[in-house]
Amino acid sequence: MARAYNFSPGPAALPESVLRQAQSDMLEWGDAGASIVEISHRGPEFMQIAAQTEADLRTLLAVPDDYAVLFVPGGATTQQALIALNFASEGDAVDYVVSGHWGKTALKQLTPAVRLNIAASGEADGYHTIPARDSWQLTPGAAYVHITANETIHGVEFRPAWGNPAPDVGDVPLFADFSSSIASEPLDISRYALIYAGAQKNLGPVGISVVIVRRDLLERAGQPRAHMFNYKAQLENDSMLNTPPTWNWYLLGLTVKWMLGEGGTDEFDRRSDVKSMLLYSTIDGSGGFYRNDVDASVRSRMNVPFFLADEALNDAFLSGAREAGLIGLKGHRVLGGMRASIYNAMPVEGVQALVGYMQEFQKRHG
Amino acid sequence: MARAYNFSPGPAALPESVLRQAQSDMLEWGDAGASIVEISHRGPEFMQIAAQTEADLRTLLAVPDDYAVLFVPGGATTQQALIALNFASEGDAVDYVVSGHWGKTALKQLTPAVRLNIAASGEADGYHTIPARDSWQLTPGAAYVHITANETIHGVEFRPAWGNPAPDVGDVPLFADFSSSIASEPLDISRYALIYAGAQKNLGPVGISVVIVRRDLLERAGQPRAHMFNYKAQLENDSMLNTPPTWNWYLLGLTVKWMLGEGGTDEFDRRSDVKSMLLYSTIDGSGGFYRNDVDASVRSRMNVPFFLADEALNDAFLSGAREAGLIGLKGHRVLGGMRASIYNAMPVEGVQALVGYMQEFQKRHG
Repeated sequence: MARAYNFSPGPAALPESVLRQAQSDMLEWGDAGASIVEISHRGPEFMQIAAQTEADLRTLLAVPDDYAVLFVPGGATTQQALIALNFASEGDAVDYVVSGHWGKTALKQLTPAVRLNIAASGEADGYHTIPARDSWQLTPGAAYVHITANETIHGVEFRPAWGNPAPDVGDVPLFADFSSSIASEPLDISRYALIYAGAQKNLGPVGISVVIVRRDLLERAGQPRAHMFNYKAQLENDSMLNTPPTWNWYLLGLTVKWMLGEGGTDEFDRRSDVKSMLLYSTIDGSGGFYRNDVDASVRSRMNVPFFLADEALNDAFLSGAREAGLIGLKGHRVLGGMRASIYNAMPVEGVQALVGYMQEFQKRHG
Repeated sequence: MARAYNFSPGPAALPESVLRQAQSDMLEWGDAGASIVEISHRGPEFMQIAAQTEADLRTLLAVPDDYAVLFVPGGATTQQALIALNFASEGDAVDYVVSGHWGKTALKQLTPAVRLNIAASGEADGYHTIPARDSWQLTPGAAYVHITANETIHGVEFRPAWGNPAPDVGDVPLFADFSSSIASEPLDISRYALIYAGAQKNLGPVGISVVIVRRDLLERAGQPRAHMFNYKAQLENDSMLNTPPTWNWYLLGLTVKWMLGEGGTDEFDRRSDVKSMLLYSTIDGSGGFYRNDVDASVRSRMNVPFFLADEALNDAFLSGAREAGLIGLKGHRVLGGMRASIYNAMPVEGVQALVGYMQEFQKRHG
């Protein structure tokens, strides 16, 4: 089939112009005499790519100067392990707010050396809401408070009712997993001590993560850990403590440049509003044929899980969607049903095609 | 410039046919309707790639059935941290044989929870030899013995004088970093308990590593660690405990398939002999114009460091090489001088071109 509208949750759709550039560069990078996949990370060609990518990402996200930016191998789950090792010492309390599957997964990355406190959890409620801030049981003097800014599976996001969208946790450093919503709107990074994101949703390719951390935090002792797991050592080595995933880094750079060219986070904020409103209004206006169970105040603009009232129609819905050039809509096995992931690389036209298909499918089967 | 002969140590040269395939697949993978970079790792298209890659790698390396194969994010340094966490419990002794820079780097990935014993080190000797087996001070009951099969920077390799080329360490599990020599010759894996390799040298792309481990070892408790750092959990999840570096995995698969098509490890063994003999004989026959300091019995067939007697000629050597279409020859900053990395993707013709250039350069400047 031809290229479809791809609603995959991550790895996810990339801008076609980025893929065409990567295709064009595949055998030879500029004047390097070799592919970008083949050249040394310490050579002038790649060093230039790395520096430009950091500069562009700092512009896109308005990263303050007192924050370091790291480009590290692996995904967000790996960073969940590393943030605990780097920023919590033995015996320290760490506070976690669990608003969905990934917040819960984060707990499994901790060792018994730290004292885990689940400050709040939406689990009893099926993760349809985020527990109100005044119900959170925070630990005075905790090493940090961890939240998941957007839950990719449950479709729950800290939205502006929560601040910008950071909740106020006082003087305790706020850490946030922004894997699936980074760069989807302007963000006041100074309200967080650390944010991290696997790149394969809004920033481009799989296999690399971005960590943005207030520099003073890197002075913390943390727990005994491999040199390779030391964020401060990574910073001192320009994120090249070992051979980094160069091609992934390069593709991230192309994607960031594309986002800047499209108008930056203001523009993606606007598009995310349009795309998510199109989908939620179609679901809510379907008279129960489609259903999304998340409280309207915390519905994600990036991942829209939905269910057909008649689940026996699921297979017909998915195969018809594929015929209509709409792929990646099957829900995560944890929830079942459907899910449309509509990151920055998904154009408004893709969501228009999806809601058109949904309405037509309902007419035929409703 | 056109594509050159690329002697980079890693990221390193890939077969041109592999790059052309990746280029052709860049916008659409088969009938998936999206690029390989964009599709879900859990979808049927990628699951097929993953399964085929494991099957091909098992064929290429003759991996015994009682060994598991993991495909994990990050490079070898990350695995150096994880092997200790997974296979050594608190208080366990671990024996390390240090035969160069990377063997030494491995030590920095350990935590104080284990008792490090440097069983032998070639450091005092400038890593020009590997200490004789009967000089090794092994710890009875150690959790494992760790060696570096080939030292990428120092150009030192365990060669057949050492066995196949595994040294005999009795009943203690032997672990080996094969990052820069895997698949360069037939290997009796049963002589090792675990081997690991960052893929970016002999197996293809950067950003992914292969771990081959005897299954019974995965029952060890190891040290408290993140779920993400648990090899057994990775195995139980088909190396998809989180979103894996899919594109890198795919490129690894293409490279393995290419190696099988070229004749497998027997053929690369033969080519490695030819290529390394061409280079060492040119160096040794230069009357001191070029120099390699490694003892002949442990000279690496993959990485050939060499020095010009007159180091003032280094820049002229490198720029002339580039004009001759030979790149990636600058030595690692730890050693200086030159280094030619001649992994499986480097054709014999590339090494012939290099020695031709070296002889001509000597004529002009000798």
